[in-house]
Amino acid sequence: MSDQGNPLFPVLTDEELSPEAAEVFEDIRRTRGVEYVNNIWRVLANDPVQLKSTWDEVKSVVSDGALDVATKQLIYIAVSVAHGCEYCVRSHTAAARGLGVTDDQLKELFQVIGIAAKTNRLAAGLQVPVDEIFK
Amino acid sequence: MSDQGNPLFPVLTDEELSPEAAEVFEDIRRTRGVEYVNNIWRVLANDPVQLKSTWDEVKSVVSDGALDVATKQLIYIAVSVAHGCEYCVRSHTAAARGLGVTDDQLKELFQVIGIAAKTNRLAAGLQVPVDEIFK
Amino acid sequence: MSDQGNPLFPVLTDEELSPEAAEVFEDIRRTRGVEYVNNIWRVLANDPVQLKSTWDEVKSVVSDGALDVATKQLIYIAVSVAHGCEYCVRSHTAAARGLGVTDDQLKELFQVIGIAAKTNRLAAGLQVPVDEIFK
Amino acid sequence: MSDQGNPLFPVLTDEELSPEAAEVFEDIRRTRGVEYVNNIWRVLANDPVQLKSTWDEVKSVVSDGALDVATKQLIYIAVSVAHGCEYCVRSHTAAARGLGVTDDQLKELFQVIGIAAKTNRLAAGLQVPVDEIFK
Amino acid sequence: MSDQGNPLFPVLTDEELSPEAAEVFEDIRRTRGVEYVNNIWRVLANDPVQLKSTWDEVKSVVSDGALDVATKQLIYIAVSVAHGCEYCVRSHTAAARGLGVTDDQLKELFQVIGIAAKTNRLAAGLQVPVDEIFK
Amino acid sequence: MSDQGNPLFPVLTDEELSPEAAEVFEDIRRTRGVEYVNNIWRVLANDPVQLKSTWDEVKSVVSDGALDVATKQLIYIAVSVAHGCEYCVRSHTAAARGLGVTDDQLKELFQVIGIAAKTNRLAAGLQVPVDEIFK
Repeated sequence: MSDQGNPLFPVLTDEELSPEAAEVFEDIRRTRGVEYVNNIWRVLANDPVQLKSTWDEVKSVVSDGALDVATKQLIYIAVSVAHGCEYCVRSHTAAARGLGVTDDQLKELFQVIGIAAKTNRLAAGLQVPVDEIFK
Repeated sequence: MSDQGNPLFPVLTDEELSPEAAEVFEDIRRTRGVEYVNNIWRVLANDPVQLKSTWDEVKSVVSDGALDVATKQLIYIAVSVAHGCEYCVRSHTAAARGLGVTDDQLKELFQVIGIAAKTNRLAAGLQVPVDEIFK
Repeated sequence: MSDQGNPLFPVLTDEELSPEAAEVFEDIRRTRGVEYVNNIWRVLANDPVQLKSTWDEVKSVVSDGALDVATKQLIYIAVSVAHGCEYCVRSHTAAARGLGVTDDQLKELFQVIGIAAKTNRLAAGLQVPVDEIFK
Repeated sequence: MSDQGNPLFPVLTDEELSPEAAEVFEDIRRTRGVEYVNNIWRVLANDPVQLKSTWDEVKSVVSDGALDVATKQLIYIAVSVAHGCEYCVRSHTAAARGLGVTDDQLKELFQVIGIAAKTNRLAAGLQVPVDEIFK
Repeated sequence: MSDQGNPLFPVLTDEELSPEAAEVFEDIRRTRGVEYVNNIWRVLANDPVQLKSTWDEVKSVVSDGALDVATKQLIYIAVSVAHGCEYCVRSHTAAARGLGVTDDQLKELFQVIGIAAKTNRLAAGLQVPVDEIFK
Repeated sequence: MSDQGNPLFPVLTDEELSPEAAEVFEDIRRTRGVEYVNNIWRVLANDPVQLKSTWDEVKSVVSDGALDVATKQLIYIAVSVAHGCEYCVRSHTAAARGLGVTDDQLKELFQVIGIAAKTNRLAAGLQVPVDEIFK
């Protein structure tokens, strides 16, 4: 960790959590069914209100809805790659694999991301007018 | 269209296509099963080599593989939103709906995109170190 | 213009310029050898200090150095496409054409931009470690 | 490498390549005239189809066309900087230097990138309307 | 509006709101002290859950805390410019002016945004190593 | 530093500075009132003209104007986070703390950045038309 530099606020251990943060951690563990709580939550825990509201949102991503959980993780990864967030790419590709997403599916994910990135820049660069039927 | 400004190269009509470009258009129509060919292809058609190679790539997105076609479109939209490409967002949300993606699914798509955008910036801004288990 | 919405500060006419802004406009016209001064300068003219410092920088782009002027415009366009700035893409592709950049060169420019966009996202998404020889 | 974390798929050695991937590597070596094949290709090699199609595209960037090879590398770097891809910036600045691009040219490259980044955000932020002559 | 194209979901009128959405609108009006509710809320109102959670977050931005409301709007604008969101830039510059932010302050805001954009790209492009004291 | 890779141009020591660069460094030290000059200036010092013009711009950020210095740093951080520049986020959060910005203020800063990132992508993704009153 030292070679990455320190975060803006410390990575809190379970012992350092405020009661409000500890409650959120309990919910994270229960919802995910895993004991390990990763660093982003431990840094957010310095601001329990932000921690709780962020977890409440992310929680909806880790349960099936109109889209299944695995699809949601693929979308999450796609956004994270486009935004250049290494932390998010690493943690969500790990999460996707944990959900059973296969290597072949990840390869197709990156194939689509690559093509989208290319055509996004071509459409904007060539100044393609939006078709009437898409308006 | 006039109020959007002209593209860098003209939006070619079917009559203006080179033989190589016409062949690609035929394949676009056959593969998609629709007569309408949208503007990005008509602008790319000014460079038939680029048109063909781009279509060959996009073609793989419009057929099922390890991921189904609808999931691929959702990923495409996610990347396009993050890159701020209006043309791509409009054309691919139309494509998704054409594939039977429901409004509830689109709402969840944007829910995930919104949360990912937020946490992407939080992780980078707070300089969260990557967990050892994600490396 | 009305359909695009108004800028944050008005598009100043020559008559509305402060003396400091008028001097910069004179230099813009002299350096470029054209009478027309485009909107970004007319909006920046509401803040003459910002106008002058921005023009002083841009001026270096419109004269040959270690790189020739046309190459600089291509680089400018590439950055503008990646940043999604429509105004900049439109004005600098016009500038490039004014400098004699051909359609074939513009096509290759966009070919490179497209490939770079794709591989940029693949490298980040696949979390490719930097080779020792590149460090 | 360990301090950067592992890629999503392993960095394959020559011995681990599939026959299709090995063929692409041979072409990479022949085209570039260097023995060293860098990590992005070794990670892409886990997906030989993606490897081949990506290399086929990149190959066009490493040969002269309407634009010379060095200019293409400068454009590649510009896009990579704007997209925040460290791997790409490092590998393509190395490639540019290998092609004889001088330090003075690289300095001007970054000068143009810096100015473009600034004016891109000013144009968008100030909501500058596109001039009629640029449409 | 027609020249901009339609949104993905309709811009709902007050009459078309669900009871849950109507309640959020009432809170928006009460909190802001203005009758006008702008389009983003009317589009989000098609998904009352998303509407409510988004408003609950944004609400915290429109009240003083450790940072005053005007400073929060300036930060909001800065992020929106960097993300290239025209809607957000237009609505939040309007909001900032409504809070009494002066033209001189807006000019300095854009001055800082422009410099940051430039040095952001220079730092990444030149691959500047993080100083030990910043880690 | 070695684990981060080398910058494109060397991190110059005080002894290696050209006279022009040394003069800028003197001004940096005088203006900031600190002896330490961080790496970005030491890399830029390889190009004294770029060093001077960049410092002249940044200098305006480190003195009060229509906006106070702390507010300017918060805006700088917001842009840097959105652009994904780690170097800039680390150096400017350090600068903000040096100016007396509190942890509570930094927490609110990131709260606003997170919400802005989310709504930026929602507004673009949902293709929300700009309200007439914002044009």
